[in-house]
Amino acid sequence: MAEFIPPGTRWVDLPSPFPMKRGGALQGARQAYETWGTLDAAASNAILILTGMSPDAHAASSAVNPMPGWWEWMIGPGKPIDTQRWFVVCVNALGSCKGSTGPASVNPDTGEPYRLDFPQLSIEDVADAAREVVRALGIEQLACVIGNSMGGMSALSLLERHPGIARTHINLCGAARALPFSIAIRSLQREAIRLDPHWNEGDYSDAVYPENGMRMARKLGVVTYRSALEWDGRFGRVRLDSERRDDDAPFGLEFEVESYLEAHARRFVRKYDPNSYLYLSRSMDWFDLGEAHDGDTARGLAAITGVRQALVIGVKTDILFPIQQQEEIAAGLRNAGCDTRFLPMPSPQGHDAFLVDEARFGPAVAGFLRALSAPHFIADMVA
Amino acid sequence: MAEFIPPGTRWVDLPSPFPMKRGGALQGARQAYETWGTLDAAASNAILILTGMSPDAHAASSAVNPMPGWWEWMIGPGKPIDTQRWFVVCVNALGSCKGSTGPASVNPDTGEPYRLDFPQLSIEDVADAAREVVRALGIEQLACVIGNSMGGMSALSLLERHPGIARTHINLCGAARALPFSIAIRSLQREAIRLDPHWNEGDYSDAVYPENGMRMARKLGVVTYRSALEWDGRFGRVRLDSERRDDDAPFGLEFEVESYLEAHARRFVRKYDPNSYLYLSRSMDWFDLGEAHDGDTARGLAAITGVRQALVIGVKTDILFPIQQQEEIAAGLRNAGCDTRFLPMPSPQGHDAFLVDEARFGPAVAGFLRALSAPHFIADMVA
Repeated sequence: MAEFIPPGTRWVDLPSPFPMKRGGALQGARQAYETWGTLDAAASNAILILTGMSPDAHAASSAVNPMPGWWEWMIGPGKPIDTQRWFVVCVNALGSCKGSTGPASVNPDTGEPYRLDFPQLSIEDVADAAREVVRALGIEQLACVIGNSMGGMSALSLLERHPGIARTHINLCGAARALPFSIAIRSLQREAIRLDPHWNEGDYSDAVYPENGMRMARKLGVVTYRSALEWDGRFGRVRLDSERRDDDAPFGLEFEVESYLEAHARRFVRKYDPNSYLYLSRSMDWFDLGEAHDGDTARGLAAITGVRQALVIGVKTDILFPIQQQEEIAAGLRNAGCDTRFLPMPSPQGHDAFLVDEARFGPAVAGFLRALSAPHFIADMVA
Repeated sequence: MAEFIPPGTRWVDLPSPFPMKRGGALQGARQAYETWGTLDAAASNAILILTGMSPDAHAASSAVNPMPGWWEWMIGPGKPIDTQRWFVVCVNALGSCKGSTGPASVNPDTGEPYRLDFPQLSIEDVADAAREVVRALGIEQLACVIGNSMGGMSALSLLERHPGIARTHINLCGAARALPFSIAIRSLQREAIRLDPHWNEGDYSDAVYPENGMRMARKLGVVTYRSALEWDGRFGRVRLDSERRDDDAPFGLEFEVESYLEAHARRFVRKYDPNSYLYLSRSMDWFDLGEAHDGDTARGLAAITGVRQALVIGVKTDILFPIQQQEEIAAGLRNAGCDTRFLPMPSPQGHDAFLVDEARFGPAVAGFLRALSAPHFIADMVA
């Protein structure tokens, strides 16, 4: 079963055993990451990026891997996350299939892939594994932890579980807990995979792969990652021209928007492990920062201490992580004593805006990071 | 193959052949309907109701069928659509499996169900078939045509294709054309059915029925019929208690919202013909009132003449037929010279609000119909 690891990926061995929040432990597991820029002598200029569900650690191009990364416009010399100033670390989530140990990895107990024997995965485990990269790189405290989408969950978990791990925080389209609409969407995505006979309770191969289930899951994802407003402008009611249609297929694709979804799905399937998809998807449903605080999300947020400044951005057209959830994060961080700026963005692109709305997200992130001025660092170093 | 016809259903034979907009014709087809109240001597008090995709003609209980209808609180003596004053007709859409001729009906040419030999179905065909009921009942002009959701499309088509057929119009959560977000959702619903091996290119039976595909389609429908806001309040993050969970199923249902979707789906499948679902779903994607007007929806709406008054209601939380679409209808009807009232409702229930938000939709509809005062009728009778 293929894993999909970009060149330039590096690894940190996780402590073995690595205990998992919901029980069990991983033996000999590892956490994939990639870095850009140079860590300064005081190890004070590190930024950690925690990703959404599907990206790998290759957030931006580098000498060793010149392929554009998934956040190419955000990270690099002179870019909003300026690698001339910052040492940037992006980790691939634990449980993923892009380098970190996950269900497609070999279980050392059996010599076979874990598949569904992988222990139950939580956002908290993703956060704890990311923590090990920070530690292994000799970073006492991050200058900033940035989380997008699922990574926004992982970042909050990291901050709550490891007080003092970061001085500042940027949360883009994230959430402090999963709500029922997004749980419903993810439940349907998982069901589409589970219903594919090729999924076979997780026991598939490259030859017999649940392609239809993954295609459906991805299409439904893309529907919720974007917005009706954007699609009205992009696709309207434009139909495929006749050579791009398969008129023999009853009820086949006819409109541009259908073809767009199909193309997205085809690019995704067979490059992502279906069991990883199931595990990470479920980890989001389970996430509630209030879980250890009597189910009170606000109290969970209030337990985040030591973060001095935060930037929280939400998108008005986001239906998957609706903007009320970023308002909740911002209010919670303020309650925790954090100097928090909340930016509601009118981006038409929905949840994916953090990936594509360079004009709005770029300056906001650049401005926040630029303002992290030298005195902070000096104060930290003498503290 | 079962059809699902409520007792009390009546039928009108459609002209034979009944030509279909996109080609072909139906032979010996019929249109199912149900009525409440009494048609007055001048046949001037008739209200026609055009439904969403899945309902049958049994909108309300009656002597012959005392089971509550799908709009029980709306229709009846003293109710918003007051059957002491109005003669109410609800038709089951052509192509449905609830009494009107559709893909599950017997093709007289072969003696077998049509299945995919049913001609391509358009909203315009649904409207034309409904027109035949009006004619057969001896109604020259309806006092009002009411359309909900897909029925809001059918009603606009009826008004545009048959000038003068109604004096007034109520459009609830309707649209003058399909937009790409809803096309995408319906495309995924159809794909879920088509991917089910039991669908078998439309050649299934009760014994081998595409239950999984229909369950997925229905769940995705329910996700888009409601709203995140309502679900936050109803379900939050509440989990199923242990006896309602199947812990042996990997990635099985865990949250109340998942169980809610599953229950909705189970009530729906095997009571709806999958091919009917595909045909009616596609008919909505195809619908654009501007099609015969150089693709200009506003001109299509402007072509609706003779409607004196209209009430158009949209719901702010509707993601499937977003409120901009009802604003478009209202603006278009005003351009056409129709005295139009537009009500944007803050209902939390999303698209389904017209079915369930009695407190908001009831008084609005009642008020509109109550104001249709006698002088109109007298003027019509002498005209």
